[in-house]
Amino acid sequence: MNKKAIVLLSGGMDSLVTAAIARQECEKLYFLHIDYGQKTSRREKKAFEDIAKYYKPSEKKIVTLDYLKDIGGSSLTDSCMQVEDHSDSKAIPTSYVPFRNAHLLAIATSWAEVIKAGHIYIGAVEEDSSGYPDCRKEFFEHFEKTIRLGTKNEFPISICTPVLDLSKAEIVQIGNKLKAPFHLTWSCYRNEEIACGRCDSCILRLRAFKTAGIIDPLPYEEVSE
Amino acid sequence: MNKKAIVLLSGGMDSLVTAAIARQECEKLYFLHIDYGQKTSRREKKAFEDIAKYYKPSEKKIVTLDYLKDIGGSSLTDSCMQVEDHSDSKAIPTSYVPFRNAHLLAIATSWAEVIKAGHIYIGAVEEDSSGYPDCRKEFFEHFEKTIRLGTKNEFPISICTPVLDLSKAEIVQIGNKLKAPFHLTWSCYRNEEIACGRCDSCILRLRAFKTAGIIDPLPYEEVSE
Repeated sequence: MNKKAIVLLSGGMDSLVTAAIARQECEKLYFLHIDYGQKTSRREKKAFEDIAKYYKPSEKKIVTLDYLKDIGGSSLTDSCMQVEDHSDSKAIPTSYVPFRNAHLLAIATSWAEVIKAGHIYIGAVEEDSSGYPDCRKEFFEHFEKTIRLGTKNEFPISICTPVLDLSKAEIVQIGNKLKAPFHLTWSCYRNEEIACGRCDSCILRLRAFKTAGIIDPLPYEEVSE
Repeated sequence: MNKKAIVLLSGGMDSLVTAAIARQECEKLYFLHIDYGQKTSRREKKAFEDIAKYYKPSEKKIVTLDYLKDIGGSSLTDSCMQVEDHSDSKAIPTSYVPFRNAHLLAIATSWAEVIKAGHIYIGAVEEDSSGYPDCRKEFFEHFEKTIRLGTKNEFPISICTPVLDLSKAEIVQIGNKLKAPFHLTWSCYRNEEIACGRCDSCILRLRAFKTAGIIDPLPYEEVSE
């Protein structure tokens, strides 16, 4: 075990468990949080800081992007668009931030190249999730090739997606086994104090904890299911 | 001709000629300039504004990235590293900004997805250039696939690199034919008033104009070759 890794940590449950797994697999962790102007960014930043205090990475970095809010096109960043309640439709929800994960990975790659970290961990979930195109396995595979071609490539940089193929309930179970501090996370897209319990992110999280048979330590306004 | 295109415009000669070509090929242009904290960013922004006044795009956008300077690793952004004089060595020069073009393309892609632009023009030059890995044809080909996989893909977004395979002298000749306003551009990595004439960017530009038999309208401290 002699691995240096950057962990993209939004402060939600998937990235927390990804960090817990990276903690097991790597020697030195570098936590990276991206504030892209989403509505709950203040609360997510607190979650990131709390989780960083818990895992004590070698270094942590918060990057603020103003331009994704300016470009718009997502209910997470556009003040004129409402965050919708969860729907079981197959359509890509309005919370999709255009090509967001490419920005996250590009920032992580530049940092990895400078500090010579060979691994970038990202807590994307493909099947049991909202259907965002930038959470597909193929997208990450191609991005990894793009990294190989677009960097000095003095050492390979791999993209690690340890929870990509898991169900959200399995993610909760693994996190529980690894004693991941779920009480420090934040998932709600809408609120910053008490989670709404109705947005896409809350519904998927609540279902996951229920299926896993574990109590979600966060407070909710409403638990409908 | 019914094309909406984003043009990444640094304000240098290659991106100017790329814009001149896009002007011929597309109906609506959207100019995008990225200030990533490079040492001559003020001067490059002026070049961008001047070129935008000349071509009158449908919209223009300037995006400021603080984080690439913070991440460092390049003499263009790191105040502790000197911009070196040009050398004919094959090594990647210290002016390489880690994975820079991926950031530029990711921003252009997010904007393209929102405004439904099907083309992103970028003035990268592969052979007759500094040897940056993120200027390789293969990098752009893979990035285009990554876009297809990581966006909603309601319409294809292509990356157009019209000057990639040209020599810098050919770029000057084409620009001259298209009446591109070279006097509005800025290329020097070091200075903001009078170009140094010794950095990588100045040397490649001076050679290009000399070979093309056209007078470079910019002022230089020194013209050594």
